[in-house]
Amino acid sequence: MQLSPVELRHASRLVNHGPTVLVSTEHQGRRNLMAAAWSMPVEFTPPRIAVVVDKKTYTHELLRASGRFAIGLPVPALAELTHAVGSESGRDVDKFARHAIAWTPGPVLGLPLVAGCSAWLELRHIAEPHTEQAYDTVFGEVVSAQADARVFAAGRWSFRDDNTELHTLHHLGGGVFAVPSRIVRAV
Amino acid sequence: MQLSPVELRHASRLVNHGPTVLVSTEHQGRRNLMAAAWSMPVEFTPPRIAVVVDKKTYTHELLRASGRFAIGLPVPALAELTHAVGSESGRDVDKFARHAIAWTPGPVLGLPLVAGCSAWLELRHIAEPHTEQAYDTVFGEVVSAQADARVFAAGRWSFRDDNTELHTLHHLGGGVFAVPSRIVRAV
Repeated sequence: MQLSPVELRHASRLVNHGPTVLVSTEHQGRRNLMAAAWSMPVEFTPPRIAVVVDKKTYTHELLRASGRFAIGLPVPALAELTHAVGSESGRDVDKFARHAIAWTPGPVLGLPLVAGCSAWLELRHIAEPHTEQAYDTVFGEVVSAQADARVFAAGRWSFRDDNTELHTLHHLGGGVFAVPSRIVRAV
Repeated sequence: MQLSPVELRHASRLVNHGPTVLVSTEHQGRRNLMAAAWSMPVEFTPPRIAVVVDKKTYTHELLRASGRFAIGLPVPALAELTHAVGSESGRDVDKFARHAIAWTPGPVLGLPLVAGCSAWLELRHIAEPHTEQAYDTVFGEVVSAQADARVFAAGRWSFRDDNTELHTLHHLGGGVFAVPSRIVRAV
């Protein structure tokens, strides 16, 4: 997997189509990874993203304490891992160790980026205590973006028959994911 | 298209996988329709959804004035219409008339629901002025939900080869949509 830099003005396109994401956090040597089906861009420039992170979770605690988080785009081969880390808490166990997850440090914030994803974003947390409390909705501003150039180039996903192993996952519930492999053009 | 009622506890599942939606609004005889690629559930019970609606749009004006909006799930045959209503303002023209859009009134709030969608939700607007101003993010609570039982039943989407015409659209940008045609099971 070779991740190439993505211009920040294109970063929101990475989650424009509603993929399930992996959220990684790190604070003073403690780290965690969770899956989130619920995220969306809210702005292109500056690139800002909203993601639903339950305020009771360990991820939320690390995210608030460190002021940063990362988002990864899992591919079909990571479906089991995505489901697993979305179904357990990292408060008492290091999920990276438990699942033997390979990772590399993010280029700007040093956050743990799971190997094998098709794209990665690092974000600075924009604290909005009311929205986080009332709706579990967390905002972040993207400060680095990378994607596999075989499936995302010039600011756009290119889902084709020859790169299906790099397509995104979209959680339907209960560990069943849809993969958006068919293309419909309106223009 | 026969829409069956969906239990409210399952309503958030309709947008769990990140589809592009149609947002319809109506206030004192004025109505509008826009497309939104950016939406997500924020809670199952009560079912609440966030959608990004630019604060300068006519949809936002009608939504604030009326305290309600509806969300529809367009199918591939509606890709052109979805792209069209997402690219023009309804302030000076009634898009329903311009595009000869057939619709039925929603069961609880009477909002115009576009014929041919695979699912519909009616929502009461939850006013959050700061979040709307700062992030264009609008929250709503679902008060009615319907879906085509051939593709959504028992609280879950069932995307199969025999119902591709009812699959959802996921906007990649520039009028190109991906359709979730392949299923990956983690369990």
